[in-house]
Amino acid sequence: MESRLIDWLRDRLPDHPLLQVGLGDDAAVLRMAGAERIVMTTDLLSDGVDFVVGEMDPRRIGHKALAVNLSDLAAMAAQPMAGVVSLLFPHGADYQLAVGLFEGMLPLAEQFSLAMAGGDTNCWPGGLAISITLLGQVTERGPLLRGEAQPGDAVVVSGAFGGSILGRHLDVCPRVNEALALHQGYTIHAGIDCSDGLSLDLSRLAEESGRGATLDAGRIPIHDDARQLSRREADGATPLDHALADGEDFELILAVPPDEAQRMVAEQPLDVMLTIVGEVTAERGLRLRDPSGKLQELRPRGWQHG
Amino acid sequence: MESRLIDWLRDRLPDHPLLQVGLGDDAAVLRMAGAERIVMTTDLLSDGVDFVVGEMDPRRIGHKALAVNLSDLAAMAAQPMAGVVSLLFPHGADYQLAVGLFEGMLPLAEQFSLAMAGGDTNCWPGGLAISITLLGQVTERGPLLRGEAQPGDAVVVSGAFGGSILGRHLDVCPRVNEALALHQGYTIHAGIDCSDGLSLDLSRLAEESGRGATLDAGRIPIHDDARQLSRREADGATPLDHALADGEDFELILAVPPDEAQRMVAEQPLDVMLTIVGEVTAERGLRLRDPSGKLQELRPRGWQHG
Repeated sequence: MESRLIDWLRDRLPDHPLLQVGLGDDAAVLRMAGAERIVMTTDLLSDGVDFVVGEMDPRRIGHKALAVNLSDLAAMAAQPMAGVVSLLFPHGADYQLAVGLFEGMLPLAEQFSLAMAGGDTNCWPGGLAISITLLGQVTERGPLLRGEAQPGDAVVVSGAFGGSILGRHLDVCPRVNEALALHQGYTIHAGIDCSDGLSLDLSRLAEESGRGATLDAGRIPIHDDARQLSRREADGATPLDHALADGEDFELILAVPPDEAQRMVAEQPLDVMLTIVGEVTAERGLRLRDPSGKLQELRPRGWQHG
Repeated sequence: MESRLIDWLRDRLPDHPLLQVGLGDDAAVLRMAGAERIVMTTDLLSDGVDFVVGEMDPRRIGHKALAVNLSDLAAMAAQPMAGVVSLLFPHGADYQLAVGLFEGMLPLAEQFSLAMAGGDTNCWPGGLAISITLLGQVTERGPLLRGEAQPGDAVVVSGAFGGSILGRHLDVCPRVNEALALHQGYTIHAGIDCSDGLSLDLSRLAEESGRGATLDAGRIPIHDDARQLSRREADGATPLDHALADGEDFELILAVPPDEAQRMVAEQPLDVMLTIVGEVTAERGLRLRDPSGKLQELRPRGWQHG
């Protein structure tokens, strides 16, 4: 399948100024002139965990696999440069599955000017696995790290949270351009993307900064999907529970100096809503503040990678 | 397992001048000053195909996974820079399996000054899969490509071929330093590493150059493992058959102008033997020349990725 897939891809991949040598050699050759610092990120997605082959259009699976990696570049406020895609197919997998995966990836690569630089394709007795590694260029504002949140910073999020399993977890819209625009226009101390759950990812940002955070229950933007899921399921989880723990929202979670955060939400410079949902605290751990002002400890919940 | 593994790794990974930010953020941040061109390569290895979990020491599996990727950098004559490692574990996998894999990788990373920059770890219902992506720096001599072999070039190989399944396929010694030394000291037109089979990989180099190649049956260095395998198996495959088709030798296959090739084998500048095994031809396809000088067509054989 590999050589046929390479031929198919070679016909479809546009020339890219970064790529001196693309598919077909032992490695791609990338022109790096001007990039003093780059970021490198990788995500491995698998059948039965991140998608279900047979139940989903391969194009949506391919789109998701690339989008979640782009979301990690967004979390670093880095400009996408190049990526490689490795695929592990079940023995006897249909060639159309491979084509479908790439048909889902290529429009996204084009949208973000990402050079598709190569990959590896193999068959095995197991299920489909997709491993993608991306390089991104750090802008002159530097990378946006997790570890530099300061006490008193506002916690600002893009979009709304919860219930992504109803479909949004596949149709991920990576916040690359949003992150670049915010990083350029505002002072931001720290950032992460929400892949595993708002409370869990915020706790990671806070932990990495040696800080904690308080979330305002009444200010968290809850997605309609979270409400729908809460109504549909009989497990007693509220829409807020879903917003805090579901994950795969792939929105930005930012620690922003309070004045800058006020300016950000007043100006609303993006197509997606920005909301202040809490603040970074000197005291470690997460807390949830209910509308009456009462604080309770919040256990970070979300998707643990095992 | 992921957070425990990150803690374990953070304790063991030495500081590396390339790494501004290593494990624990959404992406690694790499300092690139001076690297005008880099190469990017990826390989995905899986249980039952490249190794067998339970039958092999995890350290040998980890060593192999990183070594085959380093071999791709060798094939480009690039200096290893940084890498990311993604692991897909069967549900319930022992933490010691993960530690063992990295115990196999870390000495190799240190040997080749490779910055271990991050990765991704997940569990799923399937078997173990290991995806590694490496970056390498192109030297001032440029990358060593597959596609620039010229008719009349000698085909030069390092080491000996065949029978790697007896153990060498795990204890891969990537020819990084050898490739860098040869690329620095001699004019080389094209190169590839032998991962899938001497005849198959040579045919890829020739194809990519729009050329063919003739191999001298009597000059191909046949590994003792190939002889042992030929004796052991009753399928009639000769030691030469094994040398031509087994693969996973991870030796260098180079197209070298004839005078340079003569100088190379006379000087033998490496610890491993260099041998002229044939020549590049204007006519496409592979041919095998027997000791009497008779030519026959040689069908490229080796490991097809499916």
